[in-house]
Amino acid sequence: VEQQRVRVAVDLLGGDDAPDVVVDGALLAHETDPSVVPILVGPIDVATDVLTARGAAGRIETVAASQVIGMGEHPVRAVRAKSDATVRVAARLVHDGDADAMVSVGSTGGAMAAALFTFGRLPGVSRPPLAIVVAAAEHPVVLLDVGSTVEAGPELLSQFALAGASYARARLGLELPRVGLLSVGAEDSKSEGIRRDAYDAIDAVLTGLPVRFVGNVEGSDVPLGGPADVVVTDGLTGNVLLKGLEGMLARVAHGLTAAAGDDPAVRTAFAKATAALDPDVVGGAILLGVDGVAIVGHGGSSAQAVSSCIRAAAGAVTNRVVPNVAAALADLVARRRREAGLPVTPAAVVT
Amino acid sequence: VEQQRVRVAVDLLGGDDAPDVVVDGALLAHETDPSVVPILVGPIDVATDVLTARGAAGRIETVAASQVIGMGEHPVRAVRAKSDATVRVAARLVHDGDADAMVSVGSTGGAMAAALFTFGRLPGVSRPPLAIVVAAAEHPVVLLDVGSTVEAGPELLSQFALAGASYARARLGLELPRVGLLSVGAEDSKSEGIRRDAYDAIDAVLTGLPVRFVGNVEGSDVPLGGPADVVVTDGLTGNVLLKGLEGMLARVAHGLTAAAGDDPAVRTAFAKATAALDPDVVGGAILLGVDGVAIVGHGGSSAQAVSSCIRAAAGAVTNRVVPNVAAALADLVARRRREAGLPVTPAAVVT
Repeated sequence: VEQQRVRVAVDLLGGDDAPDVVVDGALLAHETDPSVVPILVGPIDVATDVLTARGAAGRIETVAASQVIGMGEHPVRAVRAKSDATVRVAARLVHDGDADAMVSVGSTGGAMAAALFTFGRLPGVSRPPLAIVVAAAEHPVVLLDVGSTVEAGPELLSQFALAGASYARARLGLELPRVGLLSVGAEDSKSEGIRRDAYDAIDAVLTGLPVRFVGNVEGSDVPLGGPADVVVTDGLTGNVLLKGLEGMLARVAHGLTAAAGDDPAVRTAFAKATAALDPDVVGGAILLGVDGVAIVGHGGSSAQAVSSCIRAAAGAVTNRVVPNVAAALADLVARRRREAGLPVTPAAVVT
Repeated sequence: VEQQRVRVAVDLLGGDDAPDVVVDGALLAHETDPSVVPILVGPIDVATDVLTARGAAGRIETVAASQVIGMGEHPVRAVRAKSDATVRVAARLVHDGDADAMVSVGSTGGAMAAALFTFGRLPGVSRPPLAIVVAAAEHPVVLLDVGSTVEAGPELLSQFALAGASYARARLGLELPRVGLLSVGAEDSKSEGIRRDAYDAIDAVLTGLPVRFVGNVEGSDVPLGGPADVVVTDGLTGNVLLKGLEGMLARVAHGLTAAAGDDPAVRTAFAKATAALDPDVVGGAILLGVDGVAIVGHGGSSAQAVSSCIRAAAGAVTNRVVPNVAAALADLVARRRREAGLPVTPAAVVT
């Protein structure tokens, strides 16, 4: 059986070390898995220069785009103003069927805005969340939202729960994903007010679906795993937690170097212990709830990290993440219309 | 110079392994620093039994209290209903001058409610925050609120900023503490809406004080340090981050054991690298903005951890944390009254 080729449009100008690490990451992704076909999106001459310097001229296709969304710019305004921005052109390739997914390690807001405007929202999603898979001690944990929407009330959180559960099913192959709501401590009485409403909203949305709502979970359940495969929260809390976990990993790495110098036993043990958490292999965050695959990575991504993002994007296509999330959301929209006494037609579902 | 004795009332019945670890922790704290004088608060016979079993009968004073706040109870209601609860009696000892500080490793909500009701709020504080000191890579970082108030708007966050800065000055001896607001990423344009208002409110409150507001910081700045000595956020985000950091530490520890077994070089390096982050030495969280010292620790505290909480409580008394926080808050109240055209009298400040 021949493996289906997956074409991934890659933002040539995004990231602290663009274009070099982007080109190197694209070459690496294709070498690692020849069925993954990156397409560089940016100035042709810039791509050609780097590819030529690597002795890889012509090995990767390039599509022209002349503008870039800077880290200091307002993402939405900049994306609107720059019709030839790399992320807009990349999103257009996906929308037009000339690529299967897009990747950027530049401005997260810029890439999200380009994907959202070009792909459009799936029915049932008001604000598409960013999701990441954390290699927790016991099993992978999907954490969302990690920075798309800093404030999220019960309705949004319940949409995130549904999108996250569908993603876990497609990406992790879970038949019955367990969903938890991020909260404080295990003392029940603490979770009142807004989190209580979110709890009830998620419970209602997930009822009757092949998903188990396990209720409140706490911050430690994300790096450790155990109660939930999917952990739902607002974009501020999720982003702070994700960055905190990354910072703690770096804190321990620094500490080990200070304590043991270059002792190879210690270095090897740490590398092995944290391999799955390494930003180089994590593969970025995926924007869920839009009608296409968009992956965003750290601005500080290495070539290895860019390669992981590209391969994660290809994996999301192969695992049919978008159709899976879309189907779950369409079910919810239909159910809500039914409950409200509105007609449920295929047209209503896909509008 | 004789060291001043500091009396610390300790909840005998709080924590997963009470009363044993509480008694052991009290004995350890006093052995480590004889100027620290724990007072056990709970059933006299229970304390006597454990002390006798340790060959330490009569070595630590006990004050009778017959009730306990369970982990499953609603803390505020339970504290109101149980006038002979250990945490209420402990708080009363402090209020009446028979102890200098209180410690509990039982229900966090119960201990906070008892301290709040008995000590009262300092003027200028609507909801007292819980603060913890994180041994970040570069320097200690005060993080607050870590779980007292799950939702906090601009006004509360600015109170937290002021209380946190005063605490950092007293506890860490910083002349000009740097205060940051926890937010998403470094991309400025992301921090709009509610966090923008919080930013402005904190900036306004700290202006003219010996504090430097450094603006937005991100999750990684808590374990790594660098931009801020004090990191301000709401209780949900702070609690999730704190638990996440603890979980990540445990995740790496498990990973190292899986990777290197009992290799003593690796174990020693990890212990050394993370010694300052060890729950056994962290010393719990302090409730700021109440008129007395109250420290709460993990329910799973070891004797070593209980001892650290008791010594942290004594340190807060010695470092005059409450008078320092009170003075900063009184200044703010006076300033606000002046700005509002209201008379500023000493009476108005201390009411």
